[in-house]
Amino acid sequence: MSHPLLDLAPLSAEHFASIERRIGAVLRTDADVIVMQGEALLPLEGCIRGAARPGSTALNVITGPYGQTFGGWLRDSGANVIDIEVPYHTSASAEAVRRALAEHPETELVSLVHAEAATGNTNPVGPIGAVVREHGALLMLDAVASVAAEPLETDRWGVDLCVIGAQKAMGGPAGVSAVSVSERAWERIRTNPNAPRRSYLSLLDWKERWIDTGRTALPHAPAQLEMLALEACVRRIEENGGLDSSIARHRATAAAMRAGAEALTGQGGEGLRPYVTDARDAAPVATTLRAPDSLDARELVTAALAAAPPNSRALPLAAGGGALGREMIRVNHYGPDATPGTVVRVLTALAEALNAAGVRADLDAASTAAESAWSGPAE
Amino acid sequence: MSHPLLDLAPLSAEHFASIERRIGAVLRTDADVIVMQGEALLPLEGCIRGAARPGSTALNVITGPYGQTFGGWLRDSGANVIDIEVPYHTSASAEAVRRALAEHPETELVSLVHAEAATGNTNPVGPIGAVVREHGALLMLDAVASVAAEPLETDRWGVDLCVIGAQKAMGGPAGVSAVSVSERAWERIRTNPNAPRRSYLSLLDWKERWIDTGRTALPHAPAQLEMLALEACVRRIEENGGLDSSIARHRATAAAMRAGAEALTGQGGEGLRPYVTDARDAAPVATTLRAPDSLDARELVTAALAAAPPNSRALPLAAGGGALGREMIRVNHYGPDATPGTVVRVLTALAEALNAAGVRADLDAASTAAESAWSGPAE
Amino acid sequence: MSHPLLDLAPLSAEHFASIERRIGAVLRTDADVIVMQGEALLPLEGCIRGAARPGSTALNVITGPYGQTFGGWLRDSGANVIDIEVPYHTSASAEAVRRALAEHPETELVSLVHAEAATGNTNPVGPIGAVVREHGALLMLDAVASVAAEPLETDRWGVDLCVIGAQKAMGGPAGVSAVSVSERAWERIRTNPNAPRRSYLSLLDWKERWIDTGRTALPHAPAQLEMLALEACVRRIEENGGLDSSIARHRATAAAMRAGAEALTGQGGEGLRPYVTDARDAAPVATTLRAPDSLDARELVTAALAAAPPNSRALPLAAGGGALGREMIRVNHYGPDATPGTVVRVLTALAEALNAAGVRADLDAASTAAESAWSGPAE
Amino acid sequence: MSHPLLDLAPLSAEHFASIERRIGAVLRTDADVIVMQGEALLPLEGCIRGAARPGSTALNVITGPYGQTFGGWLRDSGANVIDIEVPYHTSASAEAVRRALAEHPETELVSLVHAEAATGNTNPVGPIGAVVREHGALLMLDAVASVAAEPLETDRWGVDLCVIGAQKAMGGPAGVSAVSVSERAWERIRTNPNAPRRSYLSLLDWKERWIDTGRTALPHAPAQLEMLALEACVRRIEENGGLDSSIARHRATAAAMRAGAEALTGQGGEGLRPYVTDARDAAPVATTLRAPDSLDARELVTAALAAAPPNSRALPLAAGGGALGREMIRVNHYGPDATPGTVVRVLTALAEALNAAGVRADLDAASTAAESAWSGPAE
Repeated sequence: MSHPLLDLAPLSAEHFASIERRIGAVLRTDADVIVMQGEALLPLEGCIRGAARPGSTALNVITGPYGQTFGGWLRDSGANVIDIEVPYHTSASAEAVRRALAEHPETELVSLVHAEAATGNTNPVGPIGAVVREHGALLMLDAVASVAAEPLETDRWGVDLCVIGAQKAMGGPAGVSAVSVSERAWERIRTNPNAPRRSYLSLLDWKERWIDTGRTALPHAPAQLEMLALEACVRRIEENGGLDSSIARHRATAAAMRAGAEALTGQGGEGLRPYVTDARDAAPVATTLRAPDSLDARELVTAALAAAPPNSRALPLAAGGGALGREMIRVNHYGPDATPGTVVRVLTALAEALNAAGVRADLDAASTAAESAWSGPAE
Repeated sequence: MSHPLLDLAPLSAEHFASIERRIGAVLRTDADVIVMQGEALLPLEGCIRGAARPGSTALNVITGPYGQTFGGWLRDSGANVIDIEVPYHTSASAEAVRRALAEHPETELVSLVHAEAATGNTNPVGPIGAVVREHGALLMLDAVASVAAEPLETDRWGVDLCVIGAQKAMGGPAGVSAVSVSERAWERIRTNPNAPRRSYLSLLDWKERWIDTGRTALPHAPAQLEMLALEACVRRIEENGGLDSSIARHRATAAAMRAGAEALTGQGGEGLRPYVTDARDAAPVATTLRAPDSLDARELVTAALAAAPPNSRALPLAAGGGALGREMIRVNHYGPDATPGTVVRVLTALAEALNAAGVRADLDAASTAAESAWSGPAE
Repeated sequence: MSHPLLDLAPLSAEHFASIERRIGAVLRTDADVIVMQGEALLPLEGCIRGAARPGSTALNVITGPYGQTFGGWLRDSGANVIDIEVPYHTSASAEAVRRALAEHPETELVSLVHAEAATGNTNPVGPIGAVVREHGALLMLDAVASVAAEPLETDRWGVDLCVIGAQKAMGGPAGVSAVSVSERAWERIRTNPNAPRRSYLSLLDWKERWIDTGRTALPHAPAQLEMLALEACVRRIEENGGLDSSIARHRATAAAMRAGAEALTGQGGEGLRPYVTDARDAAPVATTLRAPDSLDARELVTAALAAAPPNSRALPLAAGGGALGREMIRVNHYGPDATPGTVVRVLTALAEALNAAGVRADLDAASTAAESAWSGPAE
Repeated sequence: MSHPLLDLAPLSAEHFASIERRIGAVLRTDADVIVMQGEALLPLEGCIRGAARPGSTALNVITGPYGQTFGGWLRDSGANVIDIEVPYHTSASAEAVRRALAEHPETELVSLVHAEAATGNTNPVGPIGAVVREHGALLMLDAVASVAAEPLETDRWGVDLCVIGAQKAMGGPAGVSAVSVSERAWERIRTNPNAPRRSYLSLLDWKERWIDTGRTALPHAPAQLEMLALEACVRRIEENGGLDSSIARHRATAAAMRAGAEALTGQGGEGLRPYVTDARDAAPVATTLRAPDSLDARELVTAALAAAPPNSRALPLAAGGGALGREMIRVNHYGPDATPGTVVRVLTALAEALNAAGVRADLDAASTAAESAWSGPAE
């Protein structure tokens, strides 16, 4: 009995390698690219456990929850961890990284998240990369929430370990992910006695068994369907105007969402405000909003989701995680949700929830502002 | 290179036949069932050209546009056609059919559409079937818009030729469709010298080459993917509580839509009214509404679609076809749109369009009425 | 519950039209191309019933079973049919067509099959097309078994109605098919009072409702999955070197099969011989063989299939249809079976069956001959 | 633009949990089942790193290469490892395990592979499990190569950690895998300070974040397509007679392969012999053969693969890994290759290779023996 998901001819090593080449182009890198057989957490953990030697010093730039996770892995690996915690309403700066590196010249590794879907900010990887490269440390970047939503220049920015997944702006599968590894990074991992070896977490295994043998025999059976879906989503991006077009669409969505939210309750007084204060720090994949002081964001979100038509397509709206739950509203406008429609639906639901809570919201003004921001210059 | 839609093992005759058996259960019939390799228009045309002999008399019950199409095919086949045109705001009655058959006792064939997505009404097939069976004519039924949305009892109602497609309430593919053929119908077709033979339109070809040879060799290569999708949608219905559950969901949606629309502009005065005056005549797959006299339905629909958030999932809203365009609004709430969410989204968009046109609409009252009708008894 | 074959976003008219454009490139035509929503029999029947007027004269070149089917449709349409029956061991000639047209100058339509999978021959469409065009009649071509296996030049050869399916050399789906229609053909169909109209068979319906309205609204819901599979198989051909590469592969397979079969029982005496005597007349999709006089081809095929390892992938071997069953063996080496492997597997099974029947077969010689023909110049 | 692998509705937690329930039934366990988001190596590594405490003692039963891998992980975890190496031509025995446990009463963990595709043997898990349970240690079982090919009774046999993948006898995807964890195993892992936590390798993370919270929110986005394929392969097994039928098919294939190989070169002298000397120790998923002393197995396999028709479906034949390469031939007859056809194809290719190497092989005798073993009692 035939089923479209069963009995496919095995994915050949050549085909697998061709997908890796396509991902290399997405990452804008000539370095080794490995498509790892698991969610992006797998290569992220593999990078940190591979690159952080016991007793070494790592600078961990925290701009959201993933930075916390990285810190855990770094400490687990025996590294001395210098955390730079950046308030979630802003972004990391090259200057702060420079200062930290000056204070801790022994730093060998800097870990950074590009864009944070959870907190809605995005970091200036280019300038930070230049500082790190000048200092000589390795730079690991989590670009899961930025790839295809904003420019990502792995090689030009000097990113040594760049990790992506396809499940956000690329509109692809979550079950496989990718990492690029620079020569400097390989050198570090190779000389780290504690780097995972003979392990599902090991990048070195892939280096030795896959890359160094000419990518001719896969180390184990791959997640074939996820690989095909990854290829299909890259192809779809190419056929719809390429990465630039995807980036422009996400940027326009973010601009519209921000402008609409700002116009919803007007200036002054007790309204909704962008959580990330400066628009230049705001991520194109997600917009975070600060709930009015009088209201609990969780209740507002619950009311907005209830106000929203119970669609088959859910409203991409959530309260902030953990301690942010009381004050932060998140709108995840990526992939199929990076559209004017999502912006309007979210504004409509928020307006209703605000009005019901006694905070006057002007949906017409918000819609007009959103529309004008969408069409406007995508700066 | 593997692709999930290519290189599937061929669909075996046995597998094809097993899908036909599943469709037989959906149709509640023990008669021969053929899954035709084209949209439902294919078996509908095959039925009429097969069953209508030159010089014979056919009674064509017209409750929407498909009745017009059937009349064309009947006349093309050389039949004398008695049209019973039923105003679109009501449904056909067994009594009217009885009278017509009494006036035209030579009638050999009655053609009927079960539910009309285009006009929003549904016909009492059970009582009509009893009248037709008593008279001795054949009954052909177009059940594309009723199957899985309301009860369909092919054998118990005496339907000789019953045609379905999966693309409405079943949530399945449109590229294949099915027809059941009673022994009486085969006899009629077999003795019709003009019945299509050696033709893509021919039911007889399938009878002789497929059914009578034990369903062991397909007459030509099938639309395999559409067949697999048909099987998958039947299986999904089974796994979600069966036909009864699908029917209940569509009924609740229709009740909510009707109640919500009635409450939107209130009673009396210049509002939106159900097009089908008696709720018992209203189809579960679609609700038709009469626009206020002062407004053009096409403009109202355009405004509502514009008011609606530009979603990825389109609002299932349209103006009536042809001459009905000025006065009729159609809501197609079937398959994935048979949900409370669709009802609320449509009501919201209509409310905005009405208010903008100067007709006062109360969305709160409409939502409350819809919700209460949804939860209420689905009579 | 999600299923990869259900709930896809509807295929847009634009996407449908883009697939038609791709098929136009495959057919090498600038004429109107319609992707019909059924197996290739649907457009073939539509072409003949559309182009053959009652009382007109049609020349039907019969080189296999489909020619018989075309004759039936032509007569059904009221045409006077001149059959040119070509012995199955050879192919039609432009000269024979010229003579027939000279004898029947009133001929309006010529129907021709390009390659015949059933009899293994292929016809010189270029020269025949030139003759027909000079005479002024329309030329209808069934290219289902030639497209992607040998050159097909719809416009250059003057083919007015060219029909293809994707299920043979293209390795695609069978549930949709395509037809190109020249301006001259449209004119003929338009002026034919009996051409199918308002019918699943009607090309004119597609012309008026789809092409002439700018291909913006599909006349009915399409067989979406088959359409996507059709697009995928065209894309796969493109990514594997294009049509030329597919054609070269089929030609090499046919050459190897023929050479291997000839070498199997050697020259002289009582052996296996190519059914199509001149290699230039042999089709690249299928090779037909004449069984030794002492043996029944059906028994030989049965024995070969039994000798063949009971694979999951069946051996593409069959006895001739109908009256040819006693003497003809067919090998269908197209799509995924156009490989050296299929040739060897078939030769091995035939060798075993022949030896068991007392006809000495030399598998080594056959394999060597096949291999040498495969690598050799594909003339 | 729609693609069948993209834009599926997200896999709900409920759906995910329902697949885990189905896998629980396949494993015949009431213990917690987790479907891990990676190849089976992921849960295997997770089990060992979770269950093996530093300083504890582990008994590692080595019957093939995976046992070597487990030993590496055990040592990496700081455990004292007692290896029981079983010659690959036989299987482990409960008695040997009992002796080892008596010598090392402090043993806390026993690791065992059920069937070995690489060496072709299978181990008596029932009796070994009884011994381990009596002693009180935990039993971890790698059942990737046995599930659906031979009985697997997780609970009845006292297996504490049972790992499967779907890519062998189940005919499913390789990208996700499953593990069952007994209460005793959870207790061990929970009290192991070195058990992976906050890691892709961590079983505890799934316990705490997924199972203990009622399986209502997935810890991260799943490999959705692989999950759907896993569900589809389980459903296909159910629809084809269930696990018993799959097991019977694999057993018959193994019996036929063994009997055919034994008959190929006959008794006495210099022929092919089953590598696993006692048929009761032979695995149903794969048959290993000892090459004649005069021949190198690698050359024999190369010759057989060359002799085999270059099919689209590759012959599942390989030389032994590593040091076994000179003497062992492996036949992987599982999933779609667990058929009489694969057996005959392999025997044919081996016969040709042996004859060419000067070792007389009798294909007729081998085929007869294979057929008779296939039909015979599957003991």
